Amino acid sequence: MLNKFRRKIDETIVSFLKESKKNYPFSATHPLLFNAIYDFSTREGKRIRPLLFILSYLGYTKKKPHPSLYKAAISLEFLHLFMLIHDDIIDHADLRRGKPTMHRLLEKITPHQHQQELGHHLAIIAGDIVYAMAMDAFQSFNEDPQYKRQAFHCFLETTITTALGEFIDTLHGVYPLQKIKEKDVFLNYSFKTARYTFIAPLMMGAILGKAKKDELQALASFGLFIGQAFQIQDDIIGIYESESTIGKSILSDLEEQKKTLLIIHAHQHLKGSLKKTFLNIFNQQKKTLVDLKKMQDILIQSGSLHYAVSCIQKRKQEAQNILKRLSIKKEYKVLIEKTLFKLFNQTDVVIQKFL
Amino acid sequence: MLNKFRRKIDETIVSFLKESKKNYPFSATHPLLFNAIYDFSTREGKRIRPLLFILSYLGYTKKKPHPSLYKAAISLEFLHLFMLIHDDIIDHADLRRGKPTMHRLLEKITPHQHQQELGHHLAIIAGDIVYAMAMDAFQSFNEDPQYKRQAFHCFLETTITTALGEFIDTLHGVYPLQKIKEKDVFLNYSFKTARYTFIAPLMMGAILGKAKKDELQALASFGLFIGQAFQIQDDIIGIYESESTIGKSILSDLEEQKKTLLIIHAHQHLKGSLKKTFLNIFNQQKKTLVDLKKMQDILIQSGSLHYAVSCIQKRKQEAQNILKRLSIKKEYKVLIEKTLFKLFNQTDVVIQKFL
Repeated sequence: MLNKFRRKIDETIVSFLKESKKNYPFSATHPLLFNAIYDFSTREGKRIRPLLFILSYLGYTKKKPHPSLYKAAISLEFLHLFMLIHDDIIDHADLRRGKPTMHRLLEKITPHQHQQELGHHLAIIAGDIVYAMAMDAFQSFNEDPQYKRQAFHCFLETTITTALGEFIDTLHGVYPLQKIKEKDVFLNYSFKTARYTFIAPLMMGAILGKAKKDELQALASFGLFIGQAFQIQDDIIGIYESESTIGKSILSDLEEQKKTLLIIHAHQHLKGSLKKTFLNIFNQQKKTLVDLKKMQDILIQSGSLHYAVSCIQKRKQEAQNILKRLSIKKEYKVLIEKTLFKLFNQTDVVIQKFL
Repeated sequence: MLNKFRRKIDETIVSFLKESKKNYPFSATHPLLFNAIYDFSTREGKRIRPLLFILSYLGYTKKKPHPSLYKAAISLEFLHLFMLIHDDIIDHADLRRGKPTMHRLLEKITPHQHQQELGHHLAIIAGDIVYAMAMDAFQSFNEDPQYKRQAFHCFLETTITTALGEFIDTLHGVYPLQKIKEKDVFLNYSFKTARYTFIAPLMMGAILGKAKKDELQALASFGLFIGQAFQIQDDIIGIYESESTIGKSILSDLEEQKKTLLIIHAHQHLKGSLKKTFLNIFNQQKKTLVDLKKMQDILIQSGSLHYAVSCIQKRKQEAQNILKRLSIKKEYKVLIEKTLFKLFNQTDVVIQKFL
């Protein structure tokens, strides 16, 4: 069932891209632009956002779904792609989903002395286009205008909140470690990850499925717990996973000096020479695999990995409690549970290997 | 009458900003973010886009306008602001409307060794936020959902086309002069300027005012002529006007090596030593006021200024012919004419001074 939905989502992404190529004057620019957007959008991904939207909608609606449901759903995938494009520029990332980031794709458009900067500039624009495509996809949903308007408002609110999260995240990038507290990290996770990955897809689906107001509120809490847990796991993976699994450089999280829950916890709890080593590794410009290994050990000794795993488990439990009480149709509730709790397999792998 | 509309637009911008501050969690980030958006959005401007939207709507509708008309109208001003923010990053511009550009405002947020880059990154995000605010403003228009959907589709189509224009423009920036033909310049002007400044505001107003299909097509042609003429004038101003009038550095167009109609025409028509001087000035990195004066003279000798002025006049004439035939209510037609043809006063100043 989930695979059938995923396949349909992937097919809709391709057909929407072809349609957009026809509807908008891409051909008047440079062929690499559309090709880069096509390549970037059709890479293998979990499609978690469109999937949750569909499951939530089907879990509440009393109607037979209109075929345009899938096109509305992929608006959330394109929103994600837009955010990845701009985020990767800010992070100077080279790889995304195992292939070049948008600015690395576009910098090849013409030989130029400031190749890298040109790539960044063209990718800002490509991101803006993908953002508009996301909204275009949503608008074609054939549903009651009143509920569509409400769901679209949720979509816009989400893009603003997520951008505010990205703003906080970028500021955290340049703040000194001691300026950032645990609560700032959690705020960042709520805004930057939970909101558009879990809360919005579930709520938008539920709004369009005409769920009651208290269901919407419960879904928001549910999505918040799952989202924070998911981001904490992502931080753990960034330090403890192998390159083949994460589709980007294994050193990138460390090199970007991400101030994750792990890092902030360690900074607050380490003392003496271990703290000195920790700060040395964290602050040095270039990192090696030896540094990564040392950092892995330190974060275990500081109790930070253990703490982060416990934060995940607490949130998973809270989410599970809420899910039980939601009045989503049984079959879809099972599918949501299956989709979401499978996301946390990687935490179990890390626990087995390191704790 | 026009001043009354402009005042109402300015008031609506301020009230929408205050509302957005309440509706979205700006306060969880850094106070400078909202303050920068507020400062940037409330600077004095012509408000040409919201004004055209309102005039077109009132010129066609048979209904008494709902007060939310103004909020819908300012969506076009916020679309413009979003584009300026990203455009200024790409152009490394320092001034906009006589004050610092968004990235120059935001780079002051915290002392940092890569201040300039931080400003660029934060401004990418601020632009994304302003883009979402634009759509949020439009959505609150209290009008027939069917026509609202059609007008919003025009809005999205416009943002994509404009971004494609910005993409072409950025590529032109790094292409060698001989690669760019006059038709490329006009395509760029259609996509990048005409579409969102004139065509979309007029068409969206007309769609919501329930104008007939052939009226919409005529408005599109009208907007295209005006838009191209306006952009050509903008290029002329960039070379021939004084700093106080244009609100940015008088050398910026020349330093950015903009491949305008003036420049492309001169490059194609100059010969011998004059062409050599032209290329020397155009290609050198730093420019002085002496270079600017020389360039002004060369573009007159090559006939390029004369040609550009004739292109403006031809398009103004075409636009006037279309306007006559449009079935917009008389009083609003007069106001549209007054608003638009006043824009070309600056061409007359340049003609008097230089031709």
